[in-house]
Amino acid sequence: MMRDVLNIGVIGYGYWGPNLVRNFAELTDARVHTVADLNPKALETVARRYPATKVTTDAMDLIRDPEIDAVAIATPVATHFSLAMAALKAGKHVWLEKPMTETSMQARALIDEAEKRGLTLHIDHTFVYTGPVKKMRELVRAGDLGKVLYFDSMRVNLGLFQRDVNVIADLAVHDFSILDYVFGQHPTAVSAAGINHYPGTPENLAYITLFYDSGFIAHVNVSWLAPVKLRSILIGGTEKMITFDELQPSEKLKIYDKGVSMTTDPAKIHDMRVGYRTGDMWAPKVDNSEALLVESRHFVDCIRSGAKPISDGEFGFRMVELIEAATASMRGRGETIHLPSNHNKTK
Amino acid sequence: MMRDVLNIGVIGYGYWGPNLVRNFAELTDARVHTVADLNPKALETVARRYPATKVTTDAMDLIRDPEIDAVAIATPVATHFSLAMAALKAGKHVWLEKPMTETSMQARALIDEAEKRGLTLHIDHTFVYTGPVKKMRELVRAGDLGKVLYFDSMRVNLGLFQRDVNVIADLAVHDFSILDYVFGQHPTAVSAAGINHYPGTPENLAYITLFYDSGFIAHVNVSWLAPVKLRSILIGGTEKMITFDELQPSEKLKIYDKGVSMTTDPAKIHDMRVGYRTGDMWAPKVDNSEALLVESRHFVDCIRSGAKPISDGEFGFRMVELIEAATASMRGRGETIHLPSNHNKTK
Amino acid sequence: MMRDVLNIGVIGYGYWGPNLVRNFAELTDARVHTVADLNPKALETVARRYPATKVTTDAMDLIRDPEIDAVAIATPVATHFSLAMAALKAGKHVWLEKPMTETSMQARALIDEAEKRGLTLHIDHTFVYTGPVKKMRELVRAGDLGKVLYFDSMRVNLGLFQRDVNVIADLAVHDFSILDYVFGQHPTAVSAAGINHYPGTPENLAYITLFYDSGFIAHVNVSWLAPVKLRSILIGGTEKMITFDELQPSEKLKIYDKGVSMTTDPAKIHDMRVGYRTGDMWAPKVDNSEALLVESRHFVDCIRSGAKPISDGEFGFRMVELIEAATASMRGRGETIHLPSNHNKTK
Amino acid sequence: MMRDVLNIGVIGYGYWGPNLVRNFAELTDARVHTVADLNPKALETVARRYPATKVTTDAMDLIRDPEIDAVAIATPVATHFSLAMAALKAGKHVWLEKPMTETSMQARALIDEAEKRGLTLHIDHTFVYTGPVKKMRELVRAGDLGKVLYFDSMRVNLGLFQRDVNVIADLAVHDFSILDYVFGQHPTAVSAAGINHYPGTPENLAYITLFYDSGFIAHVNVSWLAPVKLRSILIGGTEKMITFDELQPSEKLKIYDKGVSMTTDPAKIHDMRVGYRTGDMWAPKVDNSEALLVESRHFVDCIRSGAKPISDGEFGFRMVELIEAATASMRGRGETIHLPSNHNKTK
Repeated sequence: MMRDVLNIGVIGYGYWGPNLVRNFAELTDARVHTVADLNPKALETVARRYPATKVTTDAMDLIRDPEIDAVAIATPVATHFSLAMAALKAGKHVWLEKPMTETSMQARALIDEAEKRGLTLHIDHTFVYTGPVKKMRELVRAGDLGKVLYFDSMRVNLGLFQRDVNVIADLAVHDFSILDYVFGQHPTAVSAAGINHYPGTPENLAYITLFYDSGFIAHVNVSWLAPVKLRSILIGGTEKMITFDELQPSEKLKIYDKGVSMTTDPAKIHDMRVGYRTGDMWAPKVDNSEALLVESRHFVDCIRSGAKPISDGEFGFRMVELIEAATASMRGRGETIHLPSNHNKTK
Repeated sequence: MMRDVLNIGVIGYGYWGPNLVRNFAELTDARVHTVADLNPKALETVARRYPATKVTTDAMDLIRDPEIDAVAIATPVATHFSLAMAALKAGKHVWLEKPMTETSMQARALIDEAEKRGLTLHIDHTFVYTGPVKKMRELVRAGDLGKVLYFDSMRVNLGLFQRDVNVIADLAVHDFSILDYVFGQHPTAVSAAGINHYPGTPENLAYITLFYDSGFIAHVNVSWLAPVKLRSILIGGTEKMITFDELQPSEKLKIYDKGVSMTTDPAKIHDMRVGYRTGDMWAPKVDNSEALLVESRHFVDCIRSGAKPISDGEFGFRMVELIEAATASMRGRGETIHLPSNHNKTK
Repeated sequence: MMRDVLNIGVIGYGYWGPNLVRNFAELTDARVHTVADLNPKALETVARRYPATKVTTDAMDLIRDPEIDAVAIATPVATHFSLAMAALKAGKHVWLEKPMTETSMQARALIDEAEKRGLTLHIDHTFVYTGPVKKMRELVRAGDLGKVLYFDSMRVNLGLFQRDVNVIADLAVHDFSILDYVFGQHPTAVSAAGINHYPGTPENLAYITLFYDSGFIAHVNVSWLAPVKLRSILIGGTEKMITFDELQPSEKLKIYDKGVSMTTDPAKIHDMRVGYRTGDMWAPKVDNSEALLVESRHFVDCIRSGAKPISDGEFGFRMVELIEAATASMRGRGETIHLPSNHNKTK
Repeated sequence: MMRDVLNIGVIGYGYWGPNLVRNFAELTDARVHTVADLNPKALETVARRYPATKVTTDAMDLIRDPEIDAVAIATPVATHFSLAMAALKAGKHVWLEKPMTETSMQARALIDEAEKRGLTLHIDHTFVYTGPVKKMRELVRAGDLGKVLYFDSMRVNLGLFQRDVNVIADLAVHDFSILDYVFGQHPTAVSAAGINHYPGTPENLAYITLFYDSGFIAHVNVSWLAPVKLRSILIGGTEKMITFDELQPSEKLKIYDKGVSMTTDPAKIHDMRVGYRTGDMWAPKVDNSEALLVESRHFVDCIRSGAKPISDGEFGFRMVELIEAATASMRGRGETIHLPSNHNKTK
């Protein structure tokens, strides 16, 4: 029997955990019951901000607490598998930060465990819950762009260097999630180049190209070592094209009535001339709700209804698989890696 | 004996030729003697704008004219080799549009011919004559950036689709020339991905990664199929970083006192923590002279003094070699191509 | 009887004159017959660029030349009246740079003279021949904005300080011309503030407010002393709003489906609440032709057909009248100046 | 005797109140003891977010509570005077939202009451606690700009229409506070124009010019009816100029080494020519701390030390006086209003 107000335990109150706690606290049918963190300073901050929330330095206390219904895990990726598996085995629904796990094998094991127990397994790929990404999906799925030709993303800034994941797992994964959600295609091959400029640290910049059987091509440029923050995506179709700049205060998403057409006029055929079409630009109004609040709502709704989250375990698995392939290619100086085609189909 | 006012013949009055004619016309010790073009309409425009300039539809007339000292060639690349070779054999100094030739073997033959006859061979890589690129070179060469880590360029827009060269030869060549001039290093390997979305046309987008022995890495993203025009370069060094956006009306070049430093503090070593340094930004005043006028002046000066142009035949050769390697890699879906190291050294 | 190719004489080859000559030279049914300038250096440049054009240091030679049909005057404003009057008396059609004259009385005398002789009198208010301004007029006249509420322009940069006109006559006049052409209303009062920071020079910054009987209000902020160049206009209507930034490389004109509506719901009346409507943004494709070429074409067409130019003498007169009123208010520290209502009606 | 942890009562949990509560909650030596609001819904939100904070719908309960040391008032301006006076009479220190009061007479009465009782009276002019404004003050006060010539601000957006204050009191007051803090001069006259487009509402756009005896001039353009949000300030000096755009994610503040110099060369005197100087641009690193947290800290420090806040009652009084004068001028269609010179001197 489901509680009227779900009790959520949050493990990890570092960089992202405070955002989870703040958003879960805005829900009316869920609340943050306990926060666990190894750092007592972090727990003092929790206590000052949320005097009614319990705190602990022992994540297992939280996982074992029978009052807790769901566990949100916002810890370094190396701990994702063991904490999530323990939570599932304790019968808790799980919210897991991206990337889901260090390996695709671990991801598969979590999916199976959640499946077996009928528990909700939600991976926090926040981008697919943003207004502009939802609008892009609508436009692409409605065929407004014509045949889609390419996706090109630049996602760079100075820091934060991670010590446990490379820049692909940290930043490119956002583009992988947008690609999966918006286009519903899965790449068949990947080629990547990248470098770690500081010995002993993960790769801090990478250029990844994804090849698709449909002729679509995607490129992702990520870096922790850029002097300016850039978050810009170009999408090209035969009928329309899109730019998305999430750093703009307004008009983040723009749709261009621009394109190229091949001349079929026999008189001009020896020119092999391409024609350009340049029309209006249109910036649709998009939902500006905080994505994490939308996603928190979705998580609790899925727990209550038993529906699969949009970013479920399979979604998270595909992301880990892409990170693995891109990283392998990067370490092979761009060697093309072919992706398995027998994974669960993209939605 | 050199004439007081050099007579220049210009072959090709299509897209770029009018700019050559307009800039040569501003020099006081050179003038445009004849313009050749296959298209009589183009020659009518020349006649209206420059009533004192001769026109012809036969390029060989121009090349053979004993009154002409130098020939500027702004025709499709397929004709570069034969026209330039004919001009050199007729004893003319040559200004040749980029890319120099279709193959590096042709480029080598032109270099040898010019060398043998003591003629100036100038390849029009206009970017190296712009104020911001000169300033970048000064900063890099003076060591202001510290050790240089990466170069990252995005050069995209809608059109113009070329029918005789792919987007690498059309656009990426600009970045290759900036890399050569600013950093004075030559890549040892290249990996590229790209696609032609319209059958029968050259590749219209490409992503190229250049690897250097020093650990430096360069990435170039070019496209004829983007809804917006972008011309932006990021350069990262251990001490300072640069952004260059040639489309800005002012402050095109910005230098950031930003960087990353590895902690060597033993107490923090288990953190493997990276420190960030964020300081001021500085936009130096740069020379805004029209690059093509500076370059025209340089060409005539080199003819008079016998000095090698900055963008001489060897420079042009290295560019063709890179275009060949990047195109080969692209057609091999990113296969790494190793570059010969025995070419003439970069300046 | 009209010549097949009209002969135009241009007086003044300083800042703007070269643009006039370059554009007249592109017309097929007109040509630049003679250029006059007091500066022999300027005439040398003309001779180098246009060997077939005659040059003279004596403007009266040009004005008296029976081969010349029309005279374009691009000299300091203090000479506009006498040169234009001489040209009209010599039976020439006249193109006169803005501002038309130093005083509205002089402007009226030129209008009368041109009228009497059946000659075309064209004032060069270039902005009304640009694509974006034409599009704004279309939108406003079609009622797409609803009731228009305000116009707000910022037009500032560093220099060029003029010595013969203040910043209102130099820069604000562009906004006055756009206001007249787009809205077809004439202000009934004007209030201005401004200052000359350098003794002995004209006012170098000014803030002008124009009041209209319809409730519409316009504000113009002009300066020669700003560190950056800004050219931005906001227009507000009850249904839609416009931004125009002429410095953008594309999407200069944007139309916002945004507005405000007063609640008429009696239940909310004690709140006196205002509702906001935020919809899509739309950037229409606009004609990017060089305005001066369009205007040159229009001038020659008007000479041939006898039609009144869009920016005819009456248009120029209204502009001079506004400059006079705004300058008078500025010198009275913002004192409101009421404008005569009996001038020729705005189109 | 001062409590170790000060107890603050906050009146008003509407638009701004939540920000006050959130920032006071981050202090370690103060806490939010009680929140009062007429709206029970608002109090429910407080209870959910801050379970340890008391709530009440009766502001007088809060004011009379002997456990409370300081009262922060974030209510409509019409209630400022009576609530603040009641709080001072109850012996509480007071934090009062801007504008301080409806009239300068009310402001003076509050200053006198606080003075008499030795209580801290702090007016929330948040801008003077931001990093960029502090940096501007440093630059101006150090003489880096040379003689300051002008200040020009544009502060417009769509909404929020206020029903109790006009756009001058809502938005221009921010510029008045920046002018006072940065330049330390008080204007001697003000001229304003403005309009209310919706009957029964306060003026929704206004253009205000402030005149200073030193020759400095300031202009402020504010509107609730603009399609885009703009927050941009230009400052000109004889040596350097500044731009400040608070909406930029970085490089909000830029300093231009640009200026104008009058020729004193006798040979050029008949030209009356002005020379332009264009040098580098420099964007200093500025403190990005949340201003409201800095200001909260300052308020508590002033209570503890007895020091006057930067934005004390006198500061707030000068702001109200300017709002009154500008509003009077606006209602007189730009009539110049002279300001009293016998007010307490600007710091």
